Amino acid sequence: MASIFTKIINGEIPSYKIAEDDRFYAFLDINPNAKGHTLCIPKMEVDRLLDLDEDTYMGLMAFSRKIGMAIEAAIPCDRVGLTVIGLEVPHVHVHLIPLNAMRDATFQHKVSLSKDDFLEIAKKIRERII
Amino acid sequence: MASIFTKIINGEIPSYKIAEDDRFYAFLDINPNAKGHTLCIPKMEVDRLLDLDEDTYMGLMAFSRKIGMAIEAAIPCDRVGLTVIGLEVPHVHVHLIPLNAMRDATFQHKVSLSKDDFLEIAKKIRERII
Repeated sequence: MASIFTKIINGEIPSYKIAEDDRFYAFLDINPNAKGHTLCIPKMEVDRLLDLDEDTYMGLMAFSRKIGMAIEAAIPCDRVGLTVIGLEVPHVHVHLIPLNAMRDATFQHKVSLSKDDFLEIAKKIRERII
Repeated sequence: MASIFTKIINGEIPSYKIAEDDRFYAFLDINPNAKGHTLCIPKMEVDRLLDLDEDTYMGLMAFSRKIGMAIEAAIPCDRVGLTVIGLEVPHVHVHLIPLNAMRDATFQHKVSLSKDDFLEIAKKIRERII
């Protein structure tokens, strides 16, 4: 069965899309640690980060760098953190999280945003992609 | 002033070394989230991940992949997580953490290990580097 992320890529589940190319897709996390929290995923459905072939792994990291730089430019923060855990959804995803304090990185504190907030954040980040 | 990690690279502060090449260094985190928790750092002292030049960023990610695969082979776990936060030490570091449950990824729970434990873990990981 397709993962929830494959359904997002295919448009079967809506997402606040940030960017897409032939191999990767970026969208806002709808249960964010902080405003601007974004997920970058390979279109290839693989569970574990280190099971990705080297070329896809390196491509995902290059894609995440580009999106992370746009987030850092768009969202006021000390820095953007990068995290891969993967214990919940069996489809590799890189969390890019605007960090101001350690609590933003622990996944124990979440922020609540409206649909308008998500749309505005996604637009701001998209505008800063180089 | 040199960061604590530069002092580790230079041997001024001891570490349980996992691997080293001309640009990167890997060693065990002495306050680990889980057994096998390792840090990968560039020898170049830069504070923020996304301030690294593209070549160093990509090199660090390739180095971290190699070390992460060795950890996954050496330490029983569901998978190795990869995290860059950086709010404490102003020298880029990639956390590679053997994960079995979400608590291993939150940085809120730490495990206590003896010197002999660290030495044994480091040896096991080093032996699995390809």
